[in-house]
This record gives sequence, C-alpha cells and structure tokens, in this order.
Amino acid sequence: MAAPSPQPSQPAPAGKTAPRFELLTLGDELLLGLTANGHLTWIGAQLGRRGVQLARNVTITDDADAIAAQLRESWARADVLITTGGLGPTCDDRTREAVAEVLGQRLVFNDAIMREIEDRFARLRRPCTPNNRKQAFCFERGEVLSNPNGTAPGLWVAQEGKVLVMLPGPPNELQPIFLDQVLPRLAALGLVAEGEAYLQLRTAGVGESMLETRFQPVFDRHPGLGIAYCAHQWQVDCRVSSPDGRYPRAALQAIVDELAVLLGDDLICVGHDSLAKVTADLLRAQGRTLAVAESCTGGLLANSFTDICGASKFFMGGIVSYSNEAKMTLLDCPECLLSQHGAVSAECAVAMACGVAEQLSSDYALAITGYAGPTGGHDGNPTGTIYIGLHTPHGDWSKKLHYPGLRPAIKQRAVTAAIDWLRREVVKETRRTREPLAN
Amino acid sequence: MAAPSPQPSQPAPAGKTAPRFELLTLGDELLLGLTANGHLTWIGAQLGRRGVQLARNVTITDDADAIAAQLRESWARADVLITTGGLGPTCDDRTREAVAEVLGQRLVFNDAIMREIEDRFARLRRPCTPNNRKQAFCFERGEVLSNPNGTAPGLWVAQEGKVLVMLPGPPNELQPIFLDQVLPRLAALGLVAEGEAYLQLRTAGVGESMLETRFQPVFDRHPGLGIAYCAHQWQVDCRVSSPDGRYPRAALQAIVDELAVLLGDDLICVGHDSLAKVTADLLRAQGRTLAVAESCTGGLLANSFTDICGASKFFMGGIVSYSNEAKMTLLDCPECLLSQHGAVSAECAVAMACGVAEQLSSDYALAITGYAGPTGGHDGNPTGTIYIGLHTPHGDWSKKLHYPGLRPAIKQRAVTAAIDWLRREVVKETRRTREPLAN
Repeated sequence: MAAPSPQPSQPAPAGKTAPRFELLTLGDELLLGLTANGHLTWIGAQLGRRGVQLARNVTITDDADAIAAQLRESWARADVLITTGGLGPTCDDRTREAVAEVLGQRLVFNDAIMREIEDRFARLRRPCTPNNRKQAFCFERGEVLSNPNGTAPGLWVAQEGKVLVMLPGPPNELQPIFLDQVLPRLAALGLVAEGEAYLQLRTAGVGESMLETRFQPVFDRHPGLGIAYCAHQWQVDCRVSSPDGRYPRAALQAIVDELAVLLGDDLICVGHDSLAKVTADLLRAQGRTLAVAESCTGGLLANSFTDICGASKFFMGGIVSYSNEAKMTLLDCPECLLSQHGAVSAECAVAMACGVAEQLSSDYALAITGYAGPTGGHDGNPTGTIYIGLHTPHGDWSKKLHYPGLRPAIKQRAVTAAIDWLRREVVKETRRTREPLAN
Repeated sequence: MAAPSPQPSQPAPAGKTAPRFELLTLGDELLLGLTANGHLTWIGAQLGRRGVQLARNVTITDDADAIAAQLRESWARADVLITTGGLGPTCDDRTREAVAEVLGQRLVFNDAIMREIEDRFARLRRPCTPNNRKQAFCFERGEVLSNPNGTAPGLWVAQEGKVLVMLPGPPNELQPIFLDQVLPRLAALGLVAEGEAYLQLRTAGVGESMLETRFQPVFDRHPGLGIAYCAHQWQVDCRVSSPDGRYPRAALQAIVDELAVLLGDDLICVGHDSLAKVTADLLRAQGRTLAVAESCTGGLLANSFTDICGASKFFMGGIVSYSNEAKMTLLDCPECLLSQHGAVSAECAVAMACGVAEQLSSDYALAITGYAGPTGGHDGNPTGTIYIGLHTPHGDWSKKLHYPGLRPAIKQRAVTAAIDWLRREVVKETRRTREPLAN
C-alpha cells in the first residue's frame, strides 16, 4: 500500500556495526489468516524508535519440529532473536525442549516460577491444572522475565555473543515485559539506543518527493545526518538522526525545529502521536469540543477519537446516520435537501456537520458521506467519492474527494482526510488566539 | 491471543503429499510497524479454504540483496512460493534482476505489457514517467498475470516442479489477481483443491475443549475424517474434511448437519460468514431493523455492521453517546438514572438501547457501556467491566460482563458479545415465526 523509501541511513547505536534483529512469530492462527500479526507491528515500531530496523520476521506453525528447524536457521543469522508465543499451558509440550536443544542447554524446573503461577491461580480462585507445570521450566543458563499479567514468564538467554528473547503471546502480557525488562537489557548491552534514536517529523498533505525537495537545502547544510522517510496511512514521517554521533541532541532538535517551520501546517507533530491524538490535544488546549456525524464511514470516525484515552474531555459524541431517516431525525437534515441534492452531496455533508454540532452543542463538528463501495455511486459521483463537512465556530465548509481502492481503504482515507482538515482549522484558531494582533 | 489446536489432519489435495506453500512479503513498512501485514491474513485465509495451510511467512526489507538471499532460501524449501510487493515503479530497480538470477532466467521486455501500462496512463490522463518502463519486464519462461486495477502485472513461473507467483502490493490489485488467475492455475496443477476443501461450523459461546467433547461421539462413528479446531476472536471454528476422499461431499454435509443440530444456537453458521453478517442476514430475513448506542466501544459496534455491504437495508444508524449529555440529549436517558446508577450500569445500558430504538424507530437495538481502560473503573466495576443492553420487540434486558486485556481487545470482545446476544434473540424470533404451534 504505502511504500516507504529505502532506509540506507537507519541509525545504529554509535560505535557498533548494526546488530541483526529477527522476530519469530509462532502460531497457526497467523498462517491461517485468523488473526493479524500484531506483534510484528508493535515490536517493529518499538525497535524502530530505538534505532533498530527488524531485518526479518518469520511466521511459522506451532509445531515443535518446525520451531526447532526455524530457530536453528534464525539463530545462526541473527544477533538478537525475539520469539512470540509457544510458551502457554496449551502449547506443544515439546516447544521448550526443541529450543533448549538448539541452544545446547538443559531445561530446569524453577520453583520460584511455579510458586508465582500457583499464587496467581489462587488469587483468581481457579484450579491450577497440571499442564501449567511446564511453564515453570526455564533454561539452565538464562534469565526469567516475570509476567505480572499472566502465567507464562518470558525467557532471556545471552550466549555466543547473541541474545534470545522468548515472550508470551497475549499482547497485554508481552508488551509490558518488552518495555520494562527487554528494552533496558538490550540497551545495557548496547544493542539498542538508550532512548529515542531519532527525532521524527510527522506530516500530512505532502508527498514524499515534495517533502524531500523542501528539506534538501537544510540537509545540504548539515552533512552526515541520517534521514529516513516513511509513508503510511497517507502520511509521511521524516526521521532525522546522527548515525556517527556528530550532532548532539540539542543540535538535532535545532535542525528539526527549522524543518518544522518549513512545513507550516503540514506538520502534524514532532514525535509519534497519531493524527487523531494531536487533533484531540489541540481541541483540549483550546477548550473546544467536537461531535461527528458519519454515513459511509459508519462509526470509524467516532472510533478514531474514542480510541484516545480521556476522549470524553472533548468528544461529545457521534451519530452514524446510515439512513435518510436517521439524517432527518437525528441531524435535522431537511427532507427537501436530501431529495434535491442526495445524501452524497456537499450540501448534505454540511447539513450533517451543522446538525450534529447543534444536537450535541459542540464547537466543532465533522461529517462524512460518500460511496465507500463496492456498490453505490454513479457517473458524477462514482464509488470512492467522499464529501466531508466541517463545522467550526467561524464557518461551515465542505470538500469533495475521490479515493481508489477497496472499501476498508476508502473508509480509512476518508477518516484521515477529515481529521486532518479539522486539525488545520484548530491550528488556525490556536494561532489567532496566540497572536491576536498579527491577524 | 487465540490459540488454535494443531492441525494434524489439514486436508491435502487427494493423492498427493501436501505441497509446501510459503509466502514472502516485502516491505520496510511492515518491519517498521507502519502497516499491518494484511497480505498474510488474506492469502492465508484464501489458501486455508482450498485445503492448504501456509507453512511459513517471511517478511523482509525492500532491499534487492535481501530479497535475492531470502528468495534463494525459500525457493529451495517451498513447492509454491508467493511474493507480494517489490514490483511497482518506485521499487528497487534491481528486484526483478535479483529474482531472475535466482531462477536462472533472463528478463525480457514485453511490448504488450508496456502498451497496457501506457493505455492505463492515457485513460487516467496522467503522464507515463520512464520509471514505469521496468514494470514491462518479465521472465523469459513465465506467464504474465494481467492487473486490471494497476500498472504492475503479476508474474507466474513454473519450473523445477515448483511455482513462483509474484503479486503487486496494493490489496485492490493483488486480491482479484489471486482469486481470478492464481487460484485456478494452482487448482489445475493439483496444488490446491478445486473448490472449498472442508465444511466449516462457526460457533460462539463454547470453548474448544467443550466443543470437542460434544462432537466426539459423531466423529467416533465416522473414522478417517479430518477435523481441525480454530479459535479466533472469541469464536471457535470446526473444519471437517475427508483427507483420503472416503466421504463424498454429500456425506460430509450430512455429518455437518448432524453436528449443527448438536450445537443448537451456539452455531453461528456453516461457512465463512462473520458473526455480524449472519446477524444482519437474520434481521433482513425477518424484515427487522437495528439501531445501536455505544459509549466505551465508541463507534466500533456501528462499524461492525456498516462494514457489511448493503447494511442500509436493516441498519438504521448508531449513536456514540460518549458523554452524559449525549446520553440525555440523544438517547433520552433520564438524568436521575445517570446520577443514581451511573453511566456504567445495567440500568443505563437498557435505557440506551430503548432510547436509540425509539429515536430511530428500530425493532432491535444494542447498547454497550463500560470501562475499556486503561483508566476508569472502581471496586464494584473494575476496568474491563461491560454492560450490554438489548432491546427487542419482546422485551428489554441487560447483561454484565468482564474482560481482561488491553483497551482494543476489550472493545472488540464487548462488540462480539453484544452481536452474539442479538443473533441468539433473532434466531429465537425466527424459530417462533416458523413454528408457531410448537411454542
């Protein structure tokens, strides 16, 4: 979908050749397409922030023989090998043994782990069945990564100048172990950066080549910078680092500040916040509230804001007006407007935005109506046509857009475009508030 | 997350040992965690339906050397190797050459492909830049898989008793090529089943081991069946096949019908329809309409229904009542109810369901309110507490649930539980309609 540019200058911890990181994800459910490989997305992003790009991710079945064969191959190539899954009570009994054999280690029963598992079951008032016992086996030369949210602890082995990290599969168990125990250990060994390895400018509304053209004069004045562009979700991130350490943090920050000025309102943020989060923070800072009305995106726009913790501070609510009746009843869209212009029209988008703002007494409101496909649409407004309506304290507008692709992609792009438009309007208001004389 | 049981009896096309399928997904954006590996999910599911479980998925960078090295390794192991990405105009110029070298083939310029590319640009009234030319190169001994939705065609090579399939990265280009051109070619070679390889019972509300216990007596009477259980999204699928062909389709169907009776209302469907789709079809068949009101799930419930094509036939709309004000204004929740019982309560869930049903004149209505975390909740109702309200033509009820895990998982489980409850109620109504005397 989005194609980032190659990353020739991905920073490595200073003074080392870049260690090779591989991720081994175990699970039939991934290969059968039953669940998405969320561990790759999450671990890949976390390592990226510490200056490491995963060299490879291999997904294989839960079968112990397959695990042993792949582990042997990956362990020979990688400097750091991270595995997910395969540690729970219902996993193949032979998984741990197969891994121990590849490492040339013995498995030992760990009383302390068993007591923790038994305590956990006692706290939950559930019986501790015998198959939980295998989770108390660990490698004779290795460390145990305790798991506050589950029974199977993670395992850490450092040998032959390499590191093997085995993590339990459930995300709510894996993620805290990785952040609190794995990253600090990797940093102590110099395998990942101590903190954030780069500064990131997150942009919207500019293509990658245009961004490069705008930034090049600044980069020409600062040789030796590490620069990487990452396009995703119709945004482009630019990551700036100092691979050889010649630019200290403050100097990098000054360069990024200069780039930020060049970007103007095309800058979403410096950092990792999502577009929705940045927009939410701007609204909160201005003490403004938001409501949304949506037709073809059917709840996805509201969901983008309610995914943010504390959304109730600014988000008044949303209306999914999937039928003309709902548009009339809940949003006060006039019947004559719907019959004259249709539900997929600039007029309807504006009426929906104003209607929901009035219903929920919000300062701002976004509305989306369109044809997300695969059916619907006609000559003037083919499938992929989207109208966005925006209500602000200063006026109401609409915008017509057209996106190619499948229904989920069209819905996501429409939501992204709508939120970015709102962000730009709130930025303008913020500027007017701060610089009353300049306007 | 969900752990399916091992699949010892995954059916292979009759009379062959199972061919080994591997998927090679190319893209820095996957390894950096910028986009999810949707191709694995989609292709894995499509192959599963044709009786093949992917043996391995490897994700590597866009770098041509890395691609060549991995392709060499995977090509040595696999019988069928499918690659995604790396074919577009902005991809590394050397990718095709690296692959050609591994195959021991020459690249040849194909005039017909170039004309198609030029025609496409002409139709879109865009200039055809020189970097598009490389997309017209294909292998001297191979086939071209034409791409009606993009410029880069897919490539098919059969040699050394193996098959290499290269597909473009955008899902709206990849998916039709795979369904219309790749699957029929694979079936013609006997590498995948001609049609669906198994019959699937999709269930809700029963754990995997309980399901096994219920089904075992039937399976005991029918030796030689292929049986696989797949747990995902808090549902369990049971796939029944005849690996050695001893049960013809009609016999398999009779066995599945028998299992379906054992399941009763725990059966979602025989087939691949989603829980939301099945529920939607039941509503449509009864001529019933639905509206939803949601607080902590914030649009996800509405989105589950509006992801279904033609949802406007039964889905009247949804209200995301994220604030108490919204619950009062849009859903007519009484202020005294909110102050006495709180917004996270059985009383509020029922009031929300009745409120949205009234507002949108729907027959059925679902409401969800709760603490999805990470904040919120207290002793009696800790984080993860969910109340579901259900309005039906026959009465109103609420249900209290509690889920562990992270915010996205809690939201998804709450939505699944709500839809399944609605499904069971509509099934009951359907039964009453069909068998008026039996009730």
